Amino acid sequence: MDIDSYLADKRQLVDRVLDEMLPQADNEPSLLHRAMRYSIFAGGKRIRPILAMEAAEVVGGSYKSVMILTAALECVHTYSLIHDDLPAMDDDDLRRGKPTLHKVFGEAVAILAGDALLTFAFEAISSPTAARACRAEQLLGVIYELAYASGFRRLIKGQFLDISSEGKPVDAETVDCIVSSKTAALIRASLTCGALLAGGSVEEIEILGCYGENLGKAFQIRDDLLDIEGDPNKLGKAVRKDQQRGKATFPGLLGIEIAREMIQKHLSIALEAISPLGEKAAILSKIGKYIGQRIN
Amino acid sequence: MDIDSYLADKRQLVDRVLDEMLPQADNEPSLLHRAMRYSIFAGGKRIRPILAMEAAEVVGGSYKSVMILTAALECVHTYSLIHDDLPAMDDDDLRRGKPTLHKVFGEAVAILAGDALLTFAFEAISSPTAARACRAEQLLGVIYELAYASGFRRLIKGQFLDISSEGKPVDAETVDCIVSSKTAALIRASLTCGALLAGGSVEEIEILGCYGENLGKAFQIRDDLLDIEGDPNKLGKAVRKDQQRGKATFPGLLGIEIAREMIQKHLSIALEAISPLGEKAAILSKIGKYIGQRIN
Repeated sequence: MDIDSYLADKRQLVDRVLDEMLPQADNEPSLLHRAMRYSIFAGGKRIRPILAMEAAEVVGGSYKSVMILTAALECVHTYSLIHDDLPAMDDDDLRRGKPTLHKVFGEAVAILAGDALLTFAFEAISSPTAARACRAEQLLGVIYELAYASGFRRLIKGQFLDISSEGKPVDAETVDCIVSSKTAALIRASLTCGALLAGGSVEEIEILGCYGENLGKAFQIRDDLLDIEGDPNKLGKAVRKDQQRGKATFPGLLGIEIAREMIQKHLSIALEAISPLGEKAAILSKIGKYIGQRIN
Repeated sequence: MDIDSYLADKRQLVDRVLDEMLPQADNEPSLLHRAMRYSIFAGGKRIRPILAMEAAEVVGGSYKSVMILTAALECVHTYSLIHDDLPAMDDDDLRRGKPTLHKVFGEAVAILAGDALLTFAFEAISSPTAARACRAEQLLGVIYELAYASGFRRLIKGQFLDISSEGKPVDAETVDCIVSSKTAALIRASLTCGALLAGGSVEEIEILGCYGENLGKAFQIRDDLLDIEGDPNKLGKAVRKDQQRGKATFPGLLGIEIAREMIQKHLSIALEAISPLGEKAAILSKIGKYIGQRIN
């Protein structure tokens, strides 16, 4: 199986669901809806949705049962990017090869579109459509996992530490906390929520959570490495910004070689975690290797 | 019964729950937690929480069963004020008599604290503590109501229209949509969610929703009127900003007298709606009159 075409196929399924679920661009207020769609359809890899789909399959369910969840995960991820790119935050002009949302629609609309995507994630999972397809206890559990991972203890804490550590001396513990909170938390939740919704056991959810946490850390450290040695055309965003801004990253703190070793270490832990799942986890294993080598 | 001291008592109960549920200021990252608390404890009236408590009582439940919901409602309301006050939005320096959050903690922290409060609302309602006390179906229904009322179809649409209508010619229909979306939606949801969680019937929820929608409209038109003729010391914010900014309001579009008549009309509809509930709704009736006469 070619992992690239596999991911491309799954990405199409996610994009179709997002297109169906998000407000139509020609409904009023059109500008707000177009802003939400602009960022959602700016060409993301849909890693989090695909991981949720895989988690559902691994525990014996169908990826079809978690498609609303996949849309919610991508909405939360995209909201976090929109707010992160704002002038008051990282002040980024380019994202996924396109001008950032506030550059095109203005700051006010970007703040509101981010808020709208975050809120929509919770609307989608609690919607009558979701409630007809899944048990209320499971949906409630998924909402809690997602809100916890996105909230002040995890994703938002990560963004806060990322910004407040700029230009300051940091230790490895703080960088690890940033990497874990701002990135691994939502990637981990993608897997645990997918498994939870598809009826996975406590043990399966724990295994997938450990895989997700370490995959997420590898993903972020790879991201930080690509900021140093990546190709801006392939990445679709400017590079070498982290050093200019004094961002707290592992390549910045410990050097490129040690950062590379850390990626491999986290991927090893991730793959080791899912080894009890055997052949069922073959795709998760391939995704791990893909993440370690990704160039965008 | 004196409505002022009644509201003050209930406000204390809400404040205690908020204090218990929000992250402690001395836990790290302290600055983020202090920012969340700064806006929550800046002296709000807790109208939405109190309405949820009353709705629970009216349908035969106890206000104690909806205290987590009251905290969630206040978190959503406060997040919307924080983001609304940002320089890119209404650019307000003063709120509830204190400098706005971004003036004290900076824009980045204000954006993140708003995001954190919004996310925390959904975490709270789906938390294990909530799940032990209420049925999962009810909590899921409440999450949907709250997300719908706060999302791109209601609250965020209202904020968007409010900002995008500035300085433009507007008709009464647009102003009515702004008033309904940006304010009445969450006030309505406070009542319907309170009733839903306390086991209210479909009829009771519909009655309380109609009351809430009209109470919310009266509340917002009174707010717009206070911007013209209110006392800035009592209001805790600057006045006469709406005209300067060309905000779309009923007093601005139709004049003070007609706006006053509209408040009375909406209060009449609200009180008429709850008349089938009889004596049980005596306090909601008093709250209606209080809203119509409020000076802050």
